[in-house]
Amino acid sequence: MSTVIKGGTVVTAGDTFPADVLIEGEQIVALGQGLSGDKVLDASGAYVIPGGIDVHTHLDMPFGGTVSSDDFFTGQRAAAFGGTTMHIDFSIQPKGASLRETLDIWQAKATGKAVIDYGFHVAITDLSEALLEEMAHCAEYGVTSVKLFMAYKGALQVDDMTLFRAMQQAAKHKLLIMVHAENGDAIDVLIKDALAADQLAPKYHALTRPPELEAEATARAVRLAEVSGAPLYVVHLTNAGALEAVRLARARGGAGHIFAETCTQYFFFTKDDLAREGFEGAKWVCSPPFREKHDQVALWQGVADNSLQAVSTDHCPFWFDGGKDGRTAGKELGKASFAQIPNGCPGIEERLMLLYTHGVRTGKLSLNRWVELCSTNPARLFGCYPQKGAVAPGSDADLVIWDPEAKRTLSAATQHQRTDYTLYEGWEVVGAPRTVLSRGQVLVDNGEWKGEAGAGRFVHRRPFGL
Amino acid sequence: MSTVIKGGTVVTAGDTFPADVLIEGEQIVALGQGLSGDKVLDASGAYVIPGGIDVHTHLDMPFGGTVSSDDFFTGQRAAAFGGTTMHIDFSIQPKGASLRETLDIWQAKATGKAVIDYGFHVAITDLSEALLEEMAHCAEYGVTSVKLFMAYKGALQVDDMTLFRAMQQAAKHKLLIMVHAENGDAIDVLIKDALAADQLAPKYHALTRPPELEAEATARAVRLAEVSGAPLYVVHLTNAGALEAVRLARARGGAGHIFAETCTQYFFFTKDDLAREGFEGAKWVCSPPFREKHDQVALWQGVADNSLQAVSTDHCPFWFDGGKDGRTAGKELGKASFAQIPNGCPGIEERLMLLYTHGVRTGKLSLNRWVELCSTNPARLFGCYPQKGAVAPGSDADLVIWDPEAKRTLSAATQHQRTDYTLYEGWEVVGAPRTVLSRGQVLVDNGEWKGEAGAGRFVHRRPFGL
Amino acid sequence: MSTVIKGGTVVTAGDTFPADVLIEGEQIVALGQGLSGDKVLDASGAYVIPGGIDVHTHLDMPFGGTVSSDDFFTGQRAAAFGGTTMHIDFSIQPKGASLRETLDIWQAKATGKAVIDYGFHVAITDLSEALLEEMAHCAEYGVTSVKLFMAYKGALQVDDMTLFRAMQQAAKHKLLIMVHAENGDAIDVLIKDALAADQLAPKYHALTRPPELEAEATARAVRLAEVSGAPLYVVHLTNAGALEAVRLARARGGAGHIFAETCTQYFFFTKDDLAREGFEGAKWVCSPPFREKHDQVALWQGVADNSLQAVSTDHCPFWFDGGKDGRTAGKELGKASFAQIPNGCPGIEERLMLLYTHGVRTGKLSLNRWVELCSTNPARLFGCYPQKGAVAPGSDADLVIWDPEAKRTLSAATQHQRTDYTLYEGWEVVGAPRTVLSRGQVLVDNGEWKGEAGAGRFVHRRPFGL
Amino acid sequence: MSTVIKGGTVVTAGDTFPADVLIEGEQIVALGQGLSGDKVLDASGAYVIPGGIDVHTHLDMPFGGTVSSDDFFTGQRAAAFGGTTMHIDFSIQPKGASLRETLDIWQAKATGKAVIDYGFHVAITDLSEALLEEMAHCAEYGVTSVKLFMAYKGALQVDDMTLFRAMQQAAKHKLLIMVHAENGDAIDVLIKDALAADQLAPKYHALTRPPELEAEATARAVRLAEVSGAPLYVVHLTNAGALEAVRLARARGGAGHIFAETCTQYFFFTKDDLAREGFEGAKWVCSPPFREKHDQVALWQGVADNSLQAVSTDHCPFWFDGGKDGRTAGKELGKASFAQIPNGCPGIEERLMLLYTHGVRTGKLSLNRWVELCSTNPARLFGCYPQKGAVAPGSDADLVIWDPEAKRTLSAATQHQRTDYTLYEGWEVVGAPRTVLSRGQVLVDNGEWKGEAGAGRFVHRRPFGL
Repeated sequence: MSTVIKGGTVVTAGDTFPADVLIEGEQIVALGQGLSGDKVLDASGAYVIPGGIDVHTHLDMPFGGTVSSDDFFTGQRAAAFGGTTMHIDFSIQPKGASLRETLDIWQAKATGKAVIDYGFHVAITDLSEALLEEMAHCAEYGVTSVKLFMAYKGALQVDDMTLFRAMQQAAKHKLLIMVHAENGDAIDVLIKDALAADQLAPKYHALTRPPELEAEATARAVRLAEVSGAPLYVVHLTNAGALEAVRLARARGGAGHIFAETCTQYFFFTKDDLAREGFEGAKWVCSPPFREKHDQVALWQGVADNSLQAVSTDHCPFWFDGGKDGRTAGKELGKASFAQIPNGCPGIEERLMLLYTHGVRTGKLSLNRWVELCSTNPARLFGCYPQKGAVAPGSDADLVIWDPEAKRTLSAATQHQRTDYTLYEGWEVVGAPRTVLSRGQVLVDNGEWKGEAGAGRFVHRRPFGL
Repeated sequence: MSTVIKGGTVVTAGDTFPADVLIEGEQIVALGQGLSGDKVLDASGAYVIPGGIDVHTHLDMPFGGTVSSDDFFTGQRAAAFGGTTMHIDFSIQPKGASLRETLDIWQAKATGKAVIDYGFHVAITDLSEALLEEMAHCAEYGVTSVKLFMAYKGALQVDDMTLFRAMQQAAKHKLLIMVHAENGDAIDVLIKDALAADQLAPKYHALTRPPELEAEATARAVRLAEVSGAPLYVVHLTNAGALEAVRLARARGGAGHIFAETCTQYFFFTKDDLAREGFEGAKWVCSPPFREKHDQVALWQGVADNSLQAVSTDHCPFWFDGGKDGRTAGKELGKASFAQIPNGCPGIEERLMLLYTHGVRTGKLSLNRWVELCSTNPARLFGCYPQKGAVAPGSDADLVIWDPEAKRTLSAATQHQRTDYTLYEGWEVVGAPRTVLSRGQVLVDNGEWKGEAGAGRFVHRRPFGL
Repeated sequence: MSTVIKGGTVVTAGDTFPADVLIEGEQIVALGQGLSGDKVLDASGAYVIPGGIDVHTHLDMPFGGTVSSDDFFTGQRAAAFGGTTMHIDFSIQPKGASLRETLDIWQAKATGKAVIDYGFHVAITDLSEALLEEMAHCAEYGVTSVKLFMAYKGALQVDDMTLFRAMQQAAKHKLLIMVHAENGDAIDVLIKDALAADQLAPKYHALTRPPELEAEATARAVRLAEVSGAPLYVVHLTNAGALEAVRLARARGGAGHIFAETCTQYFFFTKDDLAREGFEGAKWVCSPPFREKHDQVALWQGVADNSLQAVSTDHCPFWFDGGKDGRTAGKELGKASFAQIPNGCPGIEERLMLLYTHGVRTGKLSLNRWVELCSTNPARLFGCYPQKGAVAPGSDADLVIWDPEAKRTLSAATQHQRTDYTLYEGWEVVGAPRTVLSRGQVLVDNGEWKGEAGAGRFVHRRPFGL
Repeated sequence: MSTVIKGGTVVTAGDTFPADVLIEGEQIVALGQGLSGDKVLDASGAYVIPGGIDVHTHLDMPFGGTVSSDDFFTGQRAAAFGGTTMHIDFSIQPKGASLRETLDIWQAKATGKAVIDYGFHVAITDLSEALLEEMAHCAEYGVTSVKLFMAYKGALQVDDMTLFRAMQQAAKHKLLIMVHAENGDAIDVLIKDALAADQLAPKYHALTRPPELEAEATARAVRLAEVSGAPLYVVHLTNAGALEAVRLARARGGAGHIFAETCTQYFFFTKDDLAREGFEGAKWVCSPPFREKHDQVALWQGVADNSLQAVSTDHCPFWFDGGKDGRTAGKELGKASFAQIPNGCPGIEERLMLLYTHGVRTGKLSLNRWVELCSTNPARLFGCYPQKGAVAPGSDADLVIWDPEAKRTLSAATQHQRTDYTLYEGWEVVGAPRTVLSRGQVLVDNGEWKGEAGAGRFVHRRPFGL
């Protein structure tokens, strides 16, 4: 059975050209003019792009006594509705567990629920000698990116010795080191100080995690990567100081192994959003926190000059008003203290639409750069290109027919993410998916769900640079 | 008549994938697996890339009482042998001439000789009100890039008022401003000082054009572009200070309109080469001059972190031992004084091979980045993408089948450039063109010339960003 | 006849210590405890500082068809009331005049009027070979600083060749090159554009001189100084971009010969002040124009980290409502067009008070740094230290007894500058001169004038670094 | 009894002027011309400067199973011979000891031996709650600078939480935080790796402590200081990357509380010195290690542009051939492994002479800057100015009559430091102390020792900025 997408303009990270796309089974087999197939999907007036890849998500993740509100079915379905056809989720090592065990736990969460393809990073929280040894097996597991936390003292945080040794192993085995770069030691002190001073409102979440502490940790990770030779990917970079650390490192010779992403939401909000009336600000509690207007400007400059190579979402939704009516506990856990608010925001669904509307349409990003940031670079950096991230013969037919003129109003009422709010309530976007395919199968067509739980597959990723 | 290139790996600026390439007439019509055509070209074990585009050449150019030694036939043929299938040459305004007249002069040089496609920039040396007005017609002429010289006092140099007004017009009409960025006023003084002090050897060419004066002019052009809003392309950037000026500008918001290239040779030589024994150093006399080792490091960093977006050649060959045996006068003109040495070096032929050998094979550049620097970015920036610079349905079939293992020894004896020396005498390269096509016609096949004078066509280029 | 200043705290650029200061005739002869003299001045509760030195003033200066409103008597008297006991004025070369002739013109303006000591810079507007030669005599004239204008196209502006040749001479003869750093070519175009578009209000003065054009010219002057080896002093630096150019140059090895000042007013106003209602904004018209808030922050950082070494005033007052009642023509000349507004503001009187109030009292500057910026560095850089700028045995007794608690309200009604407005109308300052001495003679005592026209002397300055 | 120093030129951080200096008892009472006293010291042809202050020394310090070879008598006497009349030594907290107990241990080392005045820093290695509380008493102890080690994992190193909490206390109590800035975690790993690979020679000391790890820790300390508001003083900064971290911090607003020193030896040696033949390189083993030539250039630029505010010595001598003939064990401890070589070099004696010869005489530093770096800034930053660091009425008469033409050859044979080598064996210096006074008493006169053990006193220092 073949499918042909006809009449569209193919947009890749490198190229823009009018072409039909021919799919046989799960793969693309040809690009060309006047192609035909058993089934025809209309792309006239539309772009045909590789499906989005979101390398930073937390589905079904235990956090602070509850669990993120999207599971692998609801979260992935929401992703698909937004044009994202692959994600890489963080499997977080329980203390003492092996990497294999950790991955098995996360695999179990996905099995039977997945509707799009997915991979895992493994987040190391407890680096034993055995685990260091086991990193040699990451390639065989198909999990070639390893995350370490420089924040969350006493919980997820590792010290520099652990980070450095993990980097050495990563350099040896060509694994990409990912870091959450905030100085957790200083933050821990600031949080305790705030609590002791009865500063409990959501806004203190931002005030106890100042941007200097992210700039610091980013610079530290960069320097450790320079010495160890490890490839490094700084996740959710939010501010001008941290960006400068990455830019300087890339300018002094690190462009081939020092990378960073930001997340959609950091282009749009500031720490003032945490100070919204009442408890409303809790919706904007995530880590690192929102910053200042000038940081937003810096982030746009960073994606433009290639100091930032990807945009992900850090999708980690919680109910605003949870813990009842069958909802898991959510933001309300932190009503008494910001320190108890589950960290995270929804966003897996809106990424491509927001970047298209505010990036491409405003001229801040080219069409190709939008595709590169949202799909191709993630695939390249995380070892699954050109299986993913490309519109090319031989690639998986994970494709989106993107209607550049479609209008949508973002709203909790209409979103597919399983939570009771969106950061973008009432925002209008222009540009949205018309049809979304995963390995040749239509998942979403004109807003209608066609997918099937369990159809999504684990993507076995290659080591960095191979 | 169709042609199919079979069995290769297509490499574009964005993607790498195994695919056959089907050509109908002059264009690519499909990429895919198992394609067939009337004629088959074997690409097994090879890459299929868009032909190189060299946006900085000087064929048949009058300079200092002589003329560059390659005309549009010999120069373009040499380009083709090296895998370059399009170039953009500088048509330099005679004082008082209109843009149209200037272009006509250059067009006449190419007509009947051209073997690959080509375009022109127009270099303004005398900016009258009429000429400013005429810039409105550049789009109609298909010549959408305008060069101005900040050096060569009393000859080509324009003052800042002229440069700025040209930029304003360029911003209005979406023309790309190109600058030769050296402070010609100070250089003129230094040259006169050197001559007065009887410092006449070739090395004084470098010493009278210190890198600070290029850094200065680069920073100046950048600032004038910021104020005028003009898109700017700094040609032949050579040193760390000038690079820093571009990088800072792109970081502070100019990534969408501030660009720069370097040229092949600046990665490989230093000012010490001008001090080679006897008059040998004259071969390395070009402007800006060669710099220091640490500048070479900076340039590799600049192409890696995207502070530099293209690599061209500034091909402007002269005979080392000219003015006899039917040769035009050459470097020997400057035996008595460096100030009389014709400025320029050959290089249109070796670019792709040198960057592949020393960039891709050493890991400094990815395959895609090599294609982007040498072909796709030039096409994008200069308004002829995706007609050129792409391997995509609808694009001109300007293609190179690149054998990554082919070995060549560069030498004056075997080169196709019409001059008696190469800067790279005896250098070994690994990676070279197997077959070169221009709009579907084979020009070079396994080292054999198949092209025909007059087949090359003028490329009508679009305004910047359109 | 000896005088002793008793009971004060001596504050110099380097030191702070309680000491009496003994003066014999015109010089200080001793610092110590329990000194006695014929006459006693009480400094209890006060600081004893070297009198301010203002190296950037324009008294009695022809400009745009009128003349600045303070002459050498009124301007110097105002200076003395504010604690400034020496200034260096710009003698501006009439086209064709020699340096000697130029200085004689200015000397004539001062003779018989001067009440404090003074020097001259010579501003070259027309650099002939003869003038270049005459620069060898600057040391003999006692005028060892030479200014060139990079702005005011067609009037004062010189091209880069002139600037560079002057720098070469300056390097040879150890003269300090001063530059007004704005790109006059581009500004000239912008002004004509504005006029053509009927943009005539005062605010267009700022809009036609954007900060990028000052940053550009500053970077250019710095690079030319690096190549020529000339000592460079950038006058009236106003913005973050220009500051960065100076800071980078000093960091890369230029700290010994690259210098810059800002002026008092640039700490306090923005371009919005030019947009005050009606014609009021004309009071704030000076060049370079006022910038943005973040530039003010940068300037404070620049004086703190020693990227800026001095603060002067660019005192160049005009009547706001002039050309009548015996007043020279003033700002009203520009009612029809910003381009006709005489450029300049009063300020010779308020400098020390404003920097003390807003710098020292807020903790932005130490007491010593305040003295260094306002007196000692000017004396050092301009070749009259330790005759001036010091509280030391052998130095001229140009001293100020500074009452740190004295309160004043700045106002046109009470100022001594000869003009009908002040930029600081109604501002309160804390800290003001109690007694001001010039070479041992009291000029101002508790607000009462004791000076005598003609008592001020020309200061014969040494070459740079000698 | 009064003493007058006659005929010299007084050089302070801010001023240079000819003056006699009158001393009554222990203090200076007057500066002036023609002063007289009971005793006359001749300073004709010489400078009179405030005695050097060395804020970074380790006398009688236990380290790695031995003790540094100079005690408070021999080390201070050597200091005096070199023109240094005060030092501040590090009292290092034994695990569990209180600050008071720590200081008492160090006080006992000095008592009866001291010949010049001295202070202590306290180095915290074990930060309990009690100790944090005790920091409130530092002002009362007269010990207002607190050092923490970011290196020496498992021994002296503190984690970031400790460092940050100490900074918070320091900000509150106005104590200056000093850091040894190297990333000890990564270094520890690199050392173990080297040992495991049998890389045991002295040069591996440098190779296991790469400059990136100092740049990292410096940037980290700076950011923690920015957040905590603590005044910070980075000790023994050695390389361009670390310098850049300090310079950027000072430029972005930290000039009032972010400081750094380098040490004499880092201007002169590189890591190649550790690779000298045989075990010779062990003499150059100190931490941080020596770097590259370009770092030396950067350090000279740093002292010139005020990115570095002081030069100390980190004097920590060991015998090269120790452990016999009454010598304590020394460098020979590390013959089997670089990791056992006691870290440290002698240098308390040569500082002023080397900086005068290679800084002042070459034009890299002005006379005033030399005094500022070696004496006045140390006194200001460490709370004992103007008692120390000044030539001013009321200041302690710690003075050096400096003969600018005196020639010396540095040698182990003639030095006063108690060790069997100097880094500068056979180096010629020009400029040396003629006479050295401590609180008015002559300690050294024309190379003859006049001091007396026990005459040196503890200097009770004030909090930062007070």
